[in-house]
Amino acid sequence: MILETAILKVIPSLQNEFERNFSIAQNIISSMKGYKWHQLQKCIEQPAQYILLVQWDTLEDHTIGFRNSPEYQKWKELLHHFYDPFPIVEHYKLVSELKKE
Amino acid sequence: MILETAILKVIPSLQNEFERNFSIAQNIISSMKGYKWHQLQKCIEQPAQYILLVQWDTLEDHTIGFRNSPEYQKWKELLHHFYDPFPIVEHYKLVSELKKE
Repeated sequence: MILETAILKVIPSLQNEFERNFSIAQNIISSMKGYKWHQLQKCIEQPAQYILLVQWDTLEDHTIGFRNSPEYQKWKELLHHFYDPFPIVEHYKLVSELKKE
Repeated sequence: MILETAILKVIPSLQNEFERNFSIAQNIISSMKGYKWHQLQKCIEQPAQYILLVQWDTLEDHTIGFRNSPEYQKWKELLHHFYDPFPIVEHYKLVSELKKE
């Protein structure tokens, strides 16, 4: 299991439009092979900053499967013009976790 | 519900020791009021980079409750000397999420 992370700096005046487009775009990513779940979260300290977390089965489900798909072109069209600068996407593997019982 | 995030850049030669100390320290944070869950994840692209995600009931459970507690002193002693530079901690609120059914 792989966690994709991207800190998204959105053009401040376009935040509402970004959130609207994201609500459409999330149906694209969630239909892809290897997709498990995602969250879009908005930063409290930094205005117009978001974090996108996406859980994938494997790294390649994101970097090859999604990014080379026709669906990715629609994702880009919906979202990429909101970012300034363009985000750095990174991937993580779980080391340890706990949950309150 | 508030997601605390911190990208942790660990001194490369101390990664094993950091992970060992974290496995002790996680029992401290998980005993605090308002704590829900946490994950420590290791970056695939950036060596010696981790992300810490902690879910809290409220912002103040982290910024006041935890940081002003005696337990935080133990957390610091176990972990803070591994970071270079010292991490920026941010907090996020959920905008939207989906899960594969």
